[in-house]
Amino acid sequence: MPWDYAPPLADMRFVIERVLAAPASWARCAPFAELDLETVDAVLQEAGRFAAGVLLPINAGGDAMGCVRDAAGHVRTPPGFREAYRAFVDGGWPALPCSPDWGGQGLPLLVDAATREMFVACNHGWVMYPDLLHGAYETIKAHASDDLKARYLQDVATGRTLAAMALTEPQAGSDLGLLRTRAEPQPDGSLRVHGSKIFISGGEHDLTEQIVHLVLCRLPDAPPGSKGISLALVPRRLPDGTRNAMHCDGLEHKMGIHGSATCQMRYEGATGWLVGEPHRGLAAMFLMMNSARLHVGLQGLGHQEVATQNALRYASERAQGRALAGGGGPGAGAGPDAIAHHPAVRHTLLRLQALVEGQRVIAYRAALALDEAAHHADAGARAQAAALAALMTPVVKAFCTHQGFHGASAALQVWGGYGYVREYGVEQSLRDARIAMIYEGTNEIQAIDLLQRKVLADGGAALRAWLVEARAEARRCADAGLADFAAALEAECDAAAHATAAVAATAGADREAPLRVADDYLMGLSHTMLAWAWAASARAALGVPDRRWAEAKTARMRYGLQWLLPQAAVHWQRVSAAGSVLPHL
Amino acid sequence: MPWDYAPPLADMRFVIERVLAAPASWARCAPFAELDLETVDAVLQEAGRFAAGVLLPINAGGDAMGCVRDAAGHVRTPPGFREAYRAFVDGGWPALPCSPDWGGQGLPLLVDAATREMFVACNHGWVMYPDLLHGAYETIKAHASDDLKARYLQDVATGRTLAAMALTEPQAGSDLGLLRTRAEPQPDGSLRVHGSKIFISGGEHDLTEQIVHLVLCRLPDAPPGSKGISLALVPRRLPDGTRNAMHCDGLEHKMGIHGSATCQMRYEGATGWLVGEPHRGLAAMFLMMNSARLHVGLQGLGHQEVATQNALRYASERAQGRALAGGGGPGAGAGPDAIAHHPAVRHTLLRLQALVEGQRVIAYRAALALDEAAHHADAGARAQAAALAALMTPVVKAFCTHQGFHGASAALQVWGGYGYVREYGVEQSLRDARIAMIYEGTNEIQAIDLLQRKVLADGGAALRAWLVEARAEARRCADAGLADFAAALEAECDAAAHATAAVAATAGADREAPLRVADDYLMGLSHTMLAWAWAASARAALGVPDRRWAEAKTARMRYGLQWLLPQAAVHWQRVSAAGSVLPHL
Repeated sequence: MPWDYAPPLADMRFVIERVLAAPASWARCAPFAELDLETVDAVLQEAGRFAAGVLLPINAGGDAMGCVRDAAGHVRTPPGFREAYRAFVDGGWPALPCSPDWGGQGLPLLVDAATREMFVACNHGWVMYPDLLHGAYETIKAHASDDLKARYLQDVATGRTLAAMALTEPQAGSDLGLLRTRAEPQPDGSLRVHGSKIFISGGEHDLTEQIVHLVLCRLPDAPPGSKGISLALVPRRLPDGTRNAMHCDGLEHKMGIHGSATCQMRYEGATGWLVGEPHRGLAAMFLMMNSARLHVGLQGLGHQEVATQNALRYASERAQGRALAGGGGPGAGAGPDAIAHHPAVRHTLLRLQALVEGQRVIAYRAALALDEAAHHADAGARAQAAALAALMTPVVKAFCTHQGFHGASAALQVWGGYGYVREYGVEQSLRDARIAMIYEGTNEIQAIDLLQRKVLADGGAALRAWLVEARAEARRCADAGLADFAAALEAECDAAAHATAAVAATAGADREAPLRVADDYLMGLSHTMLAWAWAASARAALGVPDRRWAEAKTARMRYGLQWLLPQAAVHWQRVSAAGSVLPHL
Repeated sequence: MPWDYAPPLADMRFVIERVLAAPASWARCAPFAELDLETVDAVLQEAGRFAAGVLLPINAGGDAMGCVRDAAGHVRTPPGFREAYRAFVDGGWPALPCSPDWGGQGLPLLVDAATREMFVACNHGWVMYPDLLHGAYETIKAHASDDLKARYLQDVATGRTLAAMALTEPQAGSDLGLLRTRAEPQPDGSLRVHGSKIFISGGEHDLTEQIVHLVLCRLPDAPPGSKGISLALVPRRLPDGTRNAMHCDGLEHKMGIHGSATCQMRYEGATGWLVGEPHRGLAAMFLMMNSARLHVGLQGLGHQEVATQNALRYASERAQGRALAGGGGPGAGAGPDAIAHHPAVRHTLLRLQALVEGQRVIAYRAALALDEAAHHADAGARAQAAALAALMTPVVKAFCTHQGFHGASAALQVWGGYGYVREYGVEQSLRDARIAMIYEGTNEIQAIDLLQRKVLADGGAALRAWLVEARAEARRCADAGLADFAAALEAECDAAAHATAAVAATAGADREAPLRVADDYLMGLSHTMLAWAWAASARAALGVPDRRWAEAKTARMRYGLQWLLPQAAVHWQRVSAAGSVLPHL
């Protein structure tokens, strides 16, 4: 049974239309005022067709072949990658959420998010190339000079040019303040960039002629640490058509995403131009952080979805052992039963489904918040949406990628020994999914960001605002007769509020305390958001005409409530014990 | 910094001598009555030298090269594997726990277990070849005819001959009752075996001239299902020196353990001989199940140990960011601090250490129980030890391999992006470790075995006997001034007893109920056993002359108590809710 993918269009539409009521938000956002669900459906249907029809067939080959670098430093992507990228650009996919001013289609990030989920589910390695485009687009649009914008922005928006983010150096990973790449200003206003970078996704490849590198570097007069970092745009091809002085010295041999060229880059007096203010490069990049981290979270979501679908299908066809209670009733058949009827496998499949569907609601809510933050008619609503997006982003990034990997592993177990063998596909998903827990800020960095910057720094205001929204959902559930969902959500909101107060109280006298419990805080709040997502989904399902679909959805959400939510208590308990000793090694 | 391994001899000696007081047990076991700790130390020291000096250097190469099969079906193992195997046989390692009657050294399985932990930590792929020897030895010794024993047993004991277990067929994995390979009795008393098997580790290779296959098959008059399965010994070389009619049709391309040849085998009228009674093949193999499953658990332990060591070393040398509280005190240095001082990394490292050290106590206790079950002077003690070994075995297999994989993933995270790159070693450990959750009975099968066969089937007698032992340890801790360990262990024993009673009560009217909670039951009881292991270790540490070592050990055990044990409550809660609905899909 080959690895396959059916775009989850029904669930996407359900989340966008019924759970999040996105059209009501769009009505308040000028660029989307005319947008209707039929257009969105058509876009997502086409994206799903591209994902399953173009990207999936070259996924296993990309893993098996990987990228190849020749002696001159040129990089060849796996078979089919170029053709797929050309079709991607021709289809207008890179430009989906970009402004029509720059050749884009001006669709919401929410719609873009759903397409990304499908693309990555079908080919994570390939997606790495265009995945950085939107961040580069936003950074150039917000910070580059008019001249640079005129030269590069439309090509980046439409994907005719690809982009690379050159941040990491061997000694500077999570701590970018340690980076050493230097940029020397020239009389003509350009920079000469010298330095070595590692882990540069798409630093070199054969998909496009032009690649713009956004390089973090230091100007000669830079103060030490993170306050002395500038951002330079360094193109592979200079305006006169010659090759810039930059070289790919090697490709990393990685556990997964073999189709993605992870480059060691050397800039040898490469010509570039400053983007944004001198020494304010990190700030310029942080602008794009929320959407970039959301995108990585969507990678986790995509892996979960494709692993879940395939595990469900395999479990429905693989027969081993007799089930005490089968779908056709106990003892209905004579031979072995499909393993989907065995309780251990049912648990695995229901857990996978409840989590991916709940996390889809959370991730799409964050995307909607980004749209509202940018475009809502009301300034107060924009500010509130921005705070919500900031709060949710680390949860989406860390929680969805955590489950992207662990969900792939749980799915692999459904296949038994077959899962460990390459040709069945799930082991590639596990290997590919693992990186998303690391890049774009490790999940531990996300946890610190959440607790320190998003919760404690504003005295808990953003969290309280979200809890108000969640408790309102609980009341709506209670009114709609979903008493168990209402009670569970209220209880999770209480637990989050109490644990937050506890850690805030400890943090005053013990600055390290929040750092000791940040990971548990993130997992705890992730469960509170899950409780909200499951409750909101169960309530939204009441309005779905297809009652069979709706009842199956509610059963999965209730499974999450009953079997998965208790895990939150462990995390909150550890957060509340923030004062506990954590020995030094 | 290269992947490395320091044999954990000090902790092994601590567990064997002080926590388990193994010498006192040996004194009651005739074959070990003369054994002293100095001999054991010397054996383990030598084993550690072999593991780190011979097996580790060929580990990464084995992963990169894998096995190669030629058109004739011959299989070449990776470079160095043959030489290492020769040295292994010459060193007498295969024969360690075998009877001196058959060329063995007659050492306890406990000592053998410690050597296995070290071997697999250094090269899981290589270990796959000799790993099956002991099971084959036990099966042949207990069930084969005198003629077969005379022909094969000494060679199997000493490793001059390797062995393969041929169980799985494409349609028969966890459900062996579905297997179809058939055996036709011949006038001369031999069998002609016809059939195809998959996932046969070491079915074909170039390490030894002879390979004996233990093949599950059906005789012509076999009843259907698992009660009609027989066991045949099928050698690669027939007694007259000719090649038997068996072929390796292919090798699996796997996520990990590339050095191990996982063969698709075809038997085309291959000559074999019955081992044990007709139709009683599964029973004959189940005899070796406890030790085989213990060995797989030790694989998980080995992966944890090597991943933990390397993560600790890397975290001590990699500097990123400032720590609020460093080893040298807050703000001691000017540059970035070693990441081992950051709370998130400290959590990861302490969790890894507390788990591997706790699981070592559990796994070694199970090995000691197997030794006592076989050799204790007192029949009652033998029976009790056998029941304890049976109870602990699924816990060791499932819990240690679960953490073998998840521990490797947690360790990988310490490296950040470097962890995802092949040359640093940890990603191979993650890939290799994953298989142990599947083979020798998936971890879900272990959970069912534990709850149904080991706990409920005897009315909880074996569990109660173990709880008596655990509660006695709690009282000793209380007397020794370790009140927190005593209280936590008592509480965990209570929780295990209550949850067991709850599921037993539900099971009467609802036969599926235990199956719905088996996985949680196993994880719950694993935590009870951890609580015992940590308490016993803390108490044993009181007697260690090196107070610094002892205090660091106690701090790690206390970390487990405070930060990890709360997880048990979630598992027991789900077990107690055995009556909850688990929807069908």
